[in-house]
Amino acid sequence: MNIYFDNAATTPLDHEVIELMYETSKNIFGNPSSIHSFGRKSRAEIEKSRKTIAKYLNASPLDIVFTSCGTESNNMILNCSIKRYDIQHLIISEFEHKCVLDTAKVIAEKFAIQLHTISVNEKGNVNLAELEEVLSKLEGNKLVSIMHANNEIGTMIDLKQVGDICKKYDAKFHSDTVQTMAHFPIDVKAINVNYLSGSAHKFHGPKGVGFVYMRGDSNLDAFINGGGQERSYRSGTENLISIVAIGKAFELANINMESRKDHIIEIKNYLEKRLIEEIEGISFNGDPENSLFTVLSCSFPPRYTSDMFLFNLDLSGIACSGGSACSSGAQKASHVLKAINHQEDRQTIRFSFSHFNTKKEADYLIEVLKKM
Amino acid sequence: MNIYFDNAATTPLDHEVIELMYETSKNIFGNPSSIHSFGRKSRAEIEKSRKTIAKYLNASPLDIVFTSCGTESNNMILNCSIKRYDIQHLIISEFEHKCVLDTAKVIAEKFAIQLHTISVNEKGNVNLAELEEVLSKLEGNKLVSIMHANNEIGTMIDLKQVGDICKKYDAKFHSDTVQTMAHFPIDVKAINVNYLSGSAHKFHGPKGVGFVYMRGDSNLDAFINGGGQERSYRSGTENLISIVAIGKAFELANINMESRKDHIIEIKNYLEKRLIEEIEGISFNGDPENSLFTVLSCSFPPRYTSDMFLFNLDLSGIACSGGSACSSGAQKASHVLKAINHQEDRQTIRFSFSHFNTKKEADYLIEVLKKM
Repeated sequence: MNIYFDNAATTPLDHEVIELMYETSKNIFGNPSSIHSFGRKSRAEIEKSRKTIAKYLNASPLDIVFTSCGTESNNMILNCSIKRYDIQHLIISEFEHKCVLDTAKVIAEKFAIQLHTISVNEKGNVNLAELEEVLSKLEGNKLVSIMHANNEIGTMIDLKQVGDICKKYDAKFHSDTVQTMAHFPIDVKAINVNYLSGSAHKFHGPKGVGFVYMRGDSNLDAFINGGGQERSYRSGTENLISIVAIGKAFELANINMESRKDHIIEIKNYLEKRLIEEIEGISFNGDPENSLFTVLSCSFPPRYTSDMFLFNLDLSGIACSGGSACSSGAQKASHVLKAINHQEDRQTIRFSFSHFNTKKEADYLIEVLKKM
Repeated sequence: MNIYFDNAATTPLDHEVIELMYETSKNIFGNPSSIHSFGRKSRAEIEKSRKTIAKYLNASPLDIVFTSCGTESNNMILNCSIKRYDIQHLIISEFEHKCVLDTAKVIAEKFAIQLHTISVNEKGNVNLAELEEVLSKLEGNKLVSIMHANNEIGTMIDLKQVGDICKKYDAKFHSDTVQTMAHFPIDVKAINVNYLSGSAHKFHGPKGVGFVYMRGDSNLDAFINGGGQERSYRSGTENLISIVAIGKAFELANINMESRKDHIIEIKNYLEKRLIEEIEGISFNGDPENSLFTVLSCSFPPRYTSDMFLFNLDLSGIACSGGSACSSGAQKASHVLKAINHQEDRQTIRFSFSHFNTKKEADYLIEVLKKM
């Protein structure tokens, strides 16, 4: 039995997306910048996809810029806002994804700006009182970048609440929404947010395509220079097939949001219950009241801690992760686990789900764990 | 009849590439960074593709970094070499693609380095005596970036010759090979070149994937920060399906290089001959002795100069280009046409070919032109 419980790392493609990519690859290939019929056909598909994404975010199509991935989106937002808005202070949380964490460090040095890191509590909740305190004391232009949901343990922030704090102190607000985009409803008009990021492969689209949402008043400097594609924010011939795919995957995820969520929560709750029954001493990371419904981050008691634990799960056909998406299976504690003071003698395993998973798979996992 | 004579802008996908993408999208989806079986399967495919590309360039797989397009490759090479090698002088030609031209201007300002532009003659040949003279006079670290073949008129440089000049004056050498990669044999061990760039959609692969060749002694700073993919040069979850596709397209183009070339040259020569017979006053841009075999850049006499010329060709089902790939159909003279002193009262039309084109299509084009 092959079981894929690592959907926070990446997701399998939706069947409809696969078929649409195939049809597109056979029938449409013009350069979207060409004004002849071949080019116009491609251009129409790209703008259709942009409109779809904008529609579900309650945004304008002009606010959506296609990129090659969520990591590029986050790099672009941070790199290309600093000079444009003369940002002097960049404020992040201590459990950001490495693509924000590392970029923040690099640009703090490059642009000689101050980097402030807000702590999280042992459940992974960002200390918002600390955020307010820091913001209230800072002079000059500020950019806050705090992820919507942590990719390792699942704890979420309230976008509305953080957006309001940023507005109060006149700070720009970016949220890395790679883990939540198309999983949760996001209405950009209902929250005060300048920038969001998305990546297709987290919602059953292909790897290699993502987007930036930038509010109309929050244009960025160009990230890639050249032929002026994507309104000059991101030059380079557009990734046609993948852009068509991200639109379809985004649409499917939004249309089926509630039913997928119900299905996943049922499996997650079932697995959690069975784990508590069968694995003495197991506990769960994150804030159960305030978490990604797709992620169950388990803290296994010391008797499970061995280099072979994940390896044995893999041998039994079960794919899951020890750390984050980018270091699935890593044994050493990540910066996120350190931030929540996770005990070093315990082993964290992240199971993450999609609508393709079943209860039967959860049962199989329990059987394997019992034998180990 | 629908005729695609705009292969320098982008190419249709090879049938085998389409089928391989379809199979991959159905069967492989793991995050290549995951160490479980799903991830390892993806990792293996990516490294296979990297090896294929390296093999045909006579390079090491370690020298190949996947990117999202040729424009990104060129941006990466220019942006990420300046600080690392303390470059003080950037030398380009006046007919570089906009992704080099614009990036050069931006980084010259950003890093406060000097930008030198080498002229081209009326056939589009880069003035190599001028290059030598400039290089001989410059103090400090130098980077030369000159494209292998101009995308609008097709004129080529001799990579070996320019590489030798760069070596003589201890300058690093980058060549934008987006138009020539997989069309001409390139052996990186036989030429002195530090960086090359490639883009799949110019050789019948998908849009949205490219690569950088960087010689072992010419590592770059990171272009995108994050999870450390692509040996930390370019973080972000790898574009699996497209990376598989670029390897296959590169392989097919290399295996069939001679037969494709012969086929294309036959069509190009045939069309040229017929154009000379049928269109009084037509001439051709570029250097016929030293040109992309895929490109025929025609200069039509003033009686053809009208805003409707390209539009009428399009209405007749013929896709071609007035300027470069990124501004196909643009009526105003490009920086390249200005550089070669193209007469403003004449209309340049670029026809560009692939192995999918036929002589019959050339005949149809002639019929349409005669009626106009």
